[in-house]
Amino acid sequence: MTLRSGEIESWLEYKRTTLEGLLEERLIGYLDPGAEEVLRMLNTPPLLFTTSSCVGRITVIEGEEHWSRKRARVVYKTHDFITVQELKKVMTRGFSTLWLKVSGPIVHLRTPRLSCALYVLVVARRHGFKHSGVVSRHPRLGYTFEVMSSLQMIAPLRLRGADIVDESKLDLLVLEANKLLKASREKLVSFSRELSERHEPCALGTRE
Amino acid sequence: MTLRSGEIESWLEYKRTTLEGLLEERLIGYLDPGAEEVLRMLNTPPLLFTTSSCVGRITVIEGEEHWSRKRARVVYKTHDFITVQELKKVMTRGFSTLWLKVSGPIVHLRTPRLSCALYVLVVARRHGFKHSGVVSRHPRLGYTFEVMSSLQMIAPLRLRGADIVDESKLDLLVLEANKLLKASREKLVSFSRELSERHEPCALGTRE
Repeated sequence: MTLRSGEIESWLEYKRTTLEGLLEERLIGYLDPGAEEVLRMLNTPPLLFTTSSCVGRITVIEGEEHWSRKRARVVYKTHDFITVQELKKVMTRGFSTLWLKVSGPIVHLRTPRLSCALYVLVVARRHGFKHSGVVSRHPRLGYTFEVMSSLQMIAPLRLRGADIVDESKLDLLVLEANKLLKASREKLVSFSRELSERHEPCALGTRE
Repeated sequence: MTLRSGEIESWLEYKRTTLEGLLEERLIGYLDPGAEEVLRMLNTPPLLFTTSSCVGRITVIEGEEHWSRKRARVVYKTHDFITVQELKKVMTRGFSTLWLKVSGPIVHLRTPRLSCALYVLVVARRHGFKHSGVVSRHPRLGYTFEVMSSLQMIAPLRLRGADIVDESKLDLLVLEANKLLKASREKLVSFSRELSERHEPCALGTRE
């Protein structure tokens, strides 16, 4: 699938409209804190834009299947550092299975040109976003791809009602979680910066 | 990129040769145990073959950056269940940072046809392989894509020299790790089976 010039024109209009919606979300506070500068950089290449983004977060998840949307539930979430006090507070709420999860950034991007997507994926992997790939294509909207960091932690805090991590070690766990969040966010910034500066396969003048 | 009939022919030859190499690996014992039946199913669709596969594993990783190939090291690995005894044995070896990691299956596949890859990705996601996508393309070899499970655990066992998990809780942790490995492998089997039975976009007769 290669778009013709008229189709590229309507794709660019589609990008403009979507980004305006994003700006509104920002104004009403829906956007992750710290995401603004990253989004500006990621949306710099003409043939590329972000459809959704998470700059990384720390969550506490309740349920045996932490990966499941149906059989697990986020009971605490922050895009900032977590404290031992906050973690202890969640743990006193009496769940029988609890996970502490640090998720590095995940960004979904769209482009009308496959070679642009594949170029961005190479850059992404170089900055530690190893779990990334093209996930779908749409005749008008183009290719959607995901960029995801491999910097994460998925640690059980409580299993079958029993605390797995000794209470006196929660401070070390929290320290590590915050370190991971910080490191993964730095990688998001370095990846976005490189893309805003060098993106020839996602420029208008070049061809598939 | 759509391959012409002569190119498809040489791609099929390439698939045959690569799978013969795989068979040899099996004979000399390089293949993951349990992988054989899964590989047979995944390689059933004519326009699809596996370039590498891991049916899921449990590892203990030493190093502050568990995701890094350079700054982390696998000190224990099994494609089978782990026991508390084995885990304790690794821990006595005196590392200052240790992670227990359960990685669900990861499979890399190749196809000359993008629509085949995108179809497989939809099936994969339905079976819990949420982190999947097309990662590259090659003019002759086609599209390479990755199918990866979101069933995992990345739990710190020791941080800055201190054991994070209470020794009396290691049995619960091991139980959970083995449960995850089993569940993710079942999903690999169900995914592979569906693909071996229904793969029209990856059949020879159809078009891009």
